[in-house]
Amino acid sequence: MNEPHPITINAGTDRADCLRMDADDPLAPMRDRFHLPESLLYFDGNSLGPLPHGARERLHRTIDQQWGDDLVSSWNEHDWIGLPRAVGAKVAPLIGAEADEVVVCDSVSVNLFKLLAAALRLRPGRRTVLCQADHFPTDLYIAQGLVELLGGDVELRTAPVDGLAEGLADALDESVAVVSLGHVDFRSGRLLDMAALTAAVHDHGALVLWDLSHSAGALPVELGACGADLAVGCGYKFLNGGPGAPSFLYVARRHQEQARNPLAGWLGHRNPFAFSADYEPAPGVDRFVCGTPPILALSALDAALELWQDVDLELVRRKSKMLGDLFLALVVDRCAPWMGPLELACDTDADARGSQVCLRHPQGHAIVRALIEKGVVGDFRAPDILRFGLCPLYLRHVDAWDAVAILREVLETGLYRHERFQQRQKVT
Amino acid sequence: MNEPHPITINAGTDRADCLRMDADDPLAPMRDRFHLPESLLYFDGNSLGPLPHGARERLHRTIDQQWGDDLVSSWNEHDWIGLPRAVGAKVAPLIGAEADEVVVCDSVSVNLFKLLAAALRLRPGRRTVLCQADHFPTDLYIAQGLVELLGGDVELRTAPVDGLAEGLADALDESVAVVSLGHVDFRSGRLLDMAALTAAVHDHGALVLWDLSHSAGALPVELGACGADLAVGCGYKFLNGGPGAPSFLYVARRHQEQARNPLAGWLGHRNPFAFSADYEPAPGVDRFVCGTPPILALSALDAALELWQDVDLELVRRKSKMLGDLFLALVVDRCAPWMGPLELACDTDADARGSQVCLRHPQGHAIVRALIEKGVVGDFRAPDILRFGLCPLYLRHVDAWDAVAILREVLETGLYRHERFQQRQKVT
Repeated sequence: MNEPHPITINAGTDRADCLRMDADDPLAPMRDRFHLPESLLYFDGNSLGPLPHGARERLHRTIDQQWGDDLVSSWNEHDWIGLPRAVGAKVAPLIGAEADEVVVCDSVSVNLFKLLAAALRLRPGRRTVLCQADHFPTDLYIAQGLVELLGGDVELRTAPVDGLAEGLADALDESVAVVSLGHVDFRSGRLLDMAALTAAVHDHGALVLWDLSHSAGALPVELGACGADLAVGCGYKFLNGGPGAPSFLYVARRHQEQARNPLAGWLGHRNPFAFSADYEPAPGVDRFVCGTPPILALSALDAALELWQDVDLELVRRKSKMLGDLFLALVVDRCAPWMGPLELACDTDADARGSQVCLRHPQGHAIVRALIEKGVVGDFRAPDILRFGLCPLYLRHVDAWDAVAILREVLETGLYRHERFQQRQKVT
Repeated sequence: MNEPHPITINAGTDRADCLRMDADDPLAPMRDRFHLPESLLYFDGNSLGPLPHGARERLHRTIDQQWGDDLVSSWNEHDWIGLPRAVGAKVAPLIGAEADEVVVCDSVSVNLFKLLAAALRLRPGRRTVLCQADHFPTDLYIAQGLVELLGGDVELRTAPVDGLAEGLADALDESVAVVSLGHVDFRSGRLLDMAALTAAVHDHGALVLWDLSHSAGALPVELGACGADLAVGCGYKFLNGGPGAPSFLYVARRHQEQARNPLAGWLGHRNPFAFSADYEPAPGVDRFVCGTPPILALSALDAALELWQDVDLELVRRKSKMLGDLFLALVVDRCAPWMGPLELACDTDADARGSQVCLRHPQGHAIVRALIEKGVVGDFRAPDILRFGLCPLYLRHVDAWDAVAILREVLETGLYRHERFQQRQKVT
């Protein structure tokens, strides 16, 4: 992950250089596997990944042939019942897990609840859930909801993780059962050191729960090698599984037989079609499946994951860092007159970033909306962050050039000051 | 619901009579709204409803145009963010609820957990969850999981509900916070008296949680008129929302502001896109949304629900009773030589049944599989139930005739004894 970039970026880099980088890009052919609207510069794959052609075809088949023609027999004939496990097995190599350590079902939020509750019971006597203070909101809210539900002596604690585990170390004591961390910060793109933090948590006898929503599919993740205990992650961002795609859930094999799923749904039962009155957990990670799986969504994600069979994650990481360095260098160079109100809001060291770059501006929301109107799709994160996701499977170096050129134009013309960009949208 | 049937069924009823009933059927045109494979007799819409043409078209549009072309902007432009509420508003009239009392999200199992936990907190001091003893397994399992999670003095009790509330009345005392009941029994099709049971539960100061999975879309449900407190139900059975469609969840308006969702996900937050650190529940039933909603599945269900705008549920109920009476009368008449090992396993009084009929046979699993091979799709429920779902929107009276004719043939030829039907499938 620390290899030198093949091309040096400097203030003299121009559009022709970017085109040359694209010509040399070993991942360039992957772009053809996606449906990407003509002339759209899509820097929001970290919020909703674009439609892979394979997912489109698979969905049409699932709807027309499986649901339409084969109907209920598809549970057996097309192994719908096996999809949570089969899709989990395809996620596994992307996150450094074994195939039998991952299932796909429910949302990230629901899976966070399952694993936090399971963790409290894997560490009996320990009654504290510790979350990083700037965690993604649903990670915080779910922990708050669980603690409120359990009441009694269960406690939620938050601590900063800036400066590599310093704040966290202060908050870690023998009462902590589980530490919930986001691998890549959704605002700043900060990438945490999974190995070091996992070891620090284990030193205090606690378990670690990693939220990989902004890292799975964006960079190599090594849950197993880092000794991580539990993880969840999102299916609809870098994994391109479609809007509201189900989440993946990881439980290290060593914890599986002791772990209890508090959402003891029938499809996590050892033998659901015996219709027995008493819950008995399925072997292994399968017990973390809950209700009837969402077949359309799982089929889309299953097909989207096939893209990764042809991809080396080290190349993805290398290109991601390159795209980020390029984007930031171009902003500093070409938007120099507006730096001040405009600031970089992420680390300039690519090794400390996930696969996104962030800027900050008091008019961030309006600028993001003006950029969208001009065909550059990024997103806004309150209060003032302009966020650009970098998906190496389909983004080109020249896209970074063109996006920054349009940013420059939006700043130069003051387009974003127009009143049509001032109103907040429901979803930002 | 107690009107006399327009046609008398007797031992002399023949196929021509059935065709005449179809000619007189006011719901007959609805069949054209579904994709139904040629010559398939589909008596399994109570497990997976068939594909409505409208759902197919909507899904293709959602995939190709919304996800494919409009990408992340669809959250606003196509109001993806509003779907859980919009789809809930379409379910509401089918279950006797107001539009602001229903949301659609997550699975039935997950929603059962939310509502059982909420109910315990709506009745502080009461620590017992009471479930009907023969409840659908996931209803029992989820209650078991919740009680195990909460520990302490929280107790799960089960009681029979046969003979209208007698067993239940014995188990109801001042410790019971919530009673969980299935409106229509998934095995026998028994229909409970919602008004009487809700009143009986309220007499003891408890709340009632109705599982409508086998009644919503099959018969008129009157949650509001019955004074029901909480309900969940399935999107993929009689509502035809597709495999693994999300579930609906109902909270009576009077409970909403006090009710807490233990799965406090970000999309149940008052203002999710403020990304604040503290959970604050959204107003009303919206707080029961949890994670990012599954857009493909919600879109399919949304389109499938449009069918109901043209349907009178009283007509649906009348035809359902008629189909059931016809099916049972034909079995008794035409399968007479095999009655004995073959038995009726549901009430012969249509008013006491939901929208299914059930038979029992020691070789039930093999017979169901042989029927499927001959184009009659029903399903098997352990240990010995043959279940036939009656969906009045597309089933014809002549389908009942033809299905029983094939059942007779399977019994007469002993086809089901062939070894290829003996092996159990993963999903029954």
